[in-house]
Amino acid sequence: MDVKAEIIGMAKNAKAAAAALSRVSSKVKDKALLEMADELLRQKDVLIGENGKDLEYARTAGLSEAMLDRLTLKEATLNGMAAGLREVAALPDPVGKVTSMWKRPNGLLVGRMRIPLGVIGIIYESRPNVTADAAALCLKSGNAVILRGGSEAIHSNLAIARILQDCLKKTGIPEAAIQVIPMTEREAVYEMLQLEELIDLIIPRGGEDLIRAVVSQSKIPVIKHYKGVCHIFIDADADLDMAWEICMNAKTQRPAVCNAMETLLVHRDIASRFLPEMADKYRSAGVVLRGCPRTRELLAGVEEATENDWHEEYLDLILSVRIVDDLDQAMTHIERYGSLHTESIVTQNYANAQRFLNEVNSSTVLVNASTRFSDGFELGLGAEIGISTTKLHAYGPMGLEELTTSKFIIYGNGQVRS
Amino acid sequence: MDVKAEIIGMAKNAKAAAAALSRVSSKVKDKALLEMADELLRQKDVLIGENGKDLEYARTAGLSEAMLDRLTLKEATLNGMAAGLREVAALPDPVGKVTSMWKRPNGLLVGRMRIPLGVIGIIYESRPNVTADAAALCLKSGNAVILRGGSEAIHSNLAIARILQDCLKKTGIPEAAIQVIPMTEREAVYEMLQLEELIDLIIPRGGEDLIRAVVSQSKIPVIKHYKGVCHIFIDADADLDMAWEICMNAKTQRPAVCNAMETLLVHRDIASRFLPEMADKYRSAGVVLRGCPRTRELLAGVEEATENDWHEEYLDLILSVRIVDDLDQAMTHIERYGSLHTESIVTQNYANAQRFLNEVNSSTVLVNASTRFSDGFELGLGAEIGISTTKLHAYGPMGLEELTTSKFIIYGNGQVRS
Repeated sequence: MDVKAEIIGMAKNAKAAAAALSRVSSKVKDKALLEMADELLRQKDVLIGENGKDLEYARTAGLSEAMLDRLTLKEATLNGMAAGLREVAALPDPVGKVTSMWKRPNGLLVGRMRIPLGVIGIIYESRPNVTADAAALCLKSGNAVILRGGSEAIHSNLAIARILQDCLKKTGIPEAAIQVIPMTEREAVYEMLQLEELIDLIIPRGGEDLIRAVVSQSKIPVIKHYKGVCHIFIDADADLDMAWEICMNAKTQRPAVCNAMETLLVHRDIASRFLPEMADKYRSAGVVLRGCPRTRELLAGVEEATENDWHEEYLDLILSVRIVDDLDQAMTHIERYGSLHTESIVTQNYANAQRFLNEVNSSTVLVNASTRFSDGFELGLGAEIGISTTKLHAYGPMGLEELTTSKFIIYGNGQVRS
Repeated sequence: MDVKAEIIGMAKNAKAAAAALSRVSSKVKDKALLEMADELLRQKDVLIGENGKDLEYARTAGLSEAMLDRLTLKEATLNGMAAGLREVAALPDPVGKVTSMWKRPNGLLVGRMRIPLGVIGIIYESRPNVTADAAALCLKSGNAVILRGGSEAIHSNLAIARILQDCLKKTGIPEAAIQVIPMTEREAVYEMLQLEELIDLIIPRGGEDLIRAVVSQSKIPVIKHYKGVCHIFIDADADLDMAWEICMNAKTQRPAVCNAMETLLVHRDIASRFLPEMADKYRSAGVVLRGCPRTRELLAGVEEATENDWHEEYLDLILSVRIVDDLDQAMTHIERYGSLHTESIVTQNYANAQRFLNEVNSSTVLVNASTRFSDGFELGLGAEIGISTTKLHAYGPMGLEELTTSKFIIYGNGQVRS
């Protein structure tokens, strides 16, 4: 099989489908999404059967229990996928929204209207539920999608795609609007990433290595974040109870995700009141601390944080802690070691709160709230297709609107330029 | 001299300057811009002298009269540059604008605030006035800029940059916020395009060859348009006088620019009433027509338009003309041959006007107006740094806002995730 020719064929079909899809009404797209939700549940035995093939292969290949767990399609997973599709159907359609309109002195009425991006390529790892989630968001925003999941989930992903495509067909939307790459060769990804004339955007979802490989190979724009080295700064004027609660939540509520806190910065004037009790709480929760010299003076038995620690995304119950002189030193630390993801300040000082919000240019900046809120659903975008830490196009959590662009529409009555 | 090391040094200085500049108030930025306008005029003899060195070299190198004309800094050019700087100072500052804000059920107040992109690289050809124009737009939007003009304008560009930098210094803004690459080697551009960690965006301005070279070398996102193959469709229900006037304006008012019309599509039901008189008018204006077979039946002495003509951006007094059966055929033609730049429909039919605006997904779509309005100033953006026909980040004419991105700002009072 010629992988390159196959991928080009898929991308051409996707582009043609995207042109048609950009004109499909919200009503029809929503009907397809609801049909998909029903059909995934109706065909749950088929899906669990296909998933079984993936699991069998994965077991013989010796995948870890954690990997197997992420790969497994349980009835609860399928219910979750169906619920996700229904939620996307219920969201407002971003396409065709006129975000602003103004009149020019010559009478031209100029507006900006949201339109789909076109064709989106999504490259992800083992969870097969991403196949339905990502396809739904792309469909709702009028984009055709080419999905490339992990090879270990290929049977599950293809089975899900077949069901989604049947539902597209039933509602009169071209099936090529949702495609899963059927080949597991790495070459297929490389060839996809060369097709800048056919694919408008690539979104990689997974570990830093996957994302770096995609970025280095792609001729197509990539929206991504490599990692989330998120900071919380406890200011001198913090409410201590609030600070303890936010820091506990940001580190322990779900330590393996990108918006968990990785480095805690503490104002020197509050350190002796805040840190010892915080350290006790963390110890009870199984969090291991690594500290700067001043932190280690205050807390017994804390390992030294090295230069590497300040750069590190632990994704685990480990936290680096630094005592700083003031807000400026905290912001300088964030600028130097941060990943432009999410930072929070805990303070009751009005001026410092405003300075932090205005001067820290990470993609999400919070006052008195957990970094865990840096998430499309939590911020009210209705959904999340990913998080961007590159400033072009989208910055921070991306919802449906970030899967669109805006064209200028102009109503005239005979205007010419002089 | 080590070109690579020099470019990396410049980019690092730009990044540091950008961090400082992102916090500079509108007042200070505007003061610097007004100072620059005054200083360019005060030092006009110096500038004209430095420009003379470029002109002398250009003459011995045998540049065309048209090129020499574009290169020349006359007193009028300097007055125009100064006026441009003052206009940018008068525009609203996009930085810090909160474009929307909403409350979440848990009480979090979530907003989106515009922030600068960071460091912008601009690569352009011979007009030295671009140096001041582009620098002003980047400064106003809080971005540091690295400018790379044509080698034939190097003395002029460096002299302008020295003046701009002096004004930055006087107002307390880091001088590295505006830099002109002092080396004329091509290698300097290549090295700049590799610095994805230091430069956030590249904007090439010039011919298609320049832009293709930049895109193929760049690891940094590039916003560009290759060409403008702009269409006007004269619908069956067009007002004939309006149609004649718009078509004349779109083709002849300034034929060498990207928003001039290159292909005229005419509904077959109006062709015999519209085209003969249009052809007469064009003949008087020196426009040469190339037509489809039906057009040639109607108009004597018109050459045949080949497949190449439909793809062509003439940038000259040449126009390809095609008679189509209906709106759908016109839109299919635009989808196939268009460059996603600008298209206009002339019609008095309400439904067709709305369909054209909704279904044509070029970056600017007009009803009953000349394609020449596809321009940042004309659309009311206040300024224009370029036009994008790639959908990511910006699509169509780009003003100051398109030189910014948005971060999420969140006001909480102790919220944690459950």
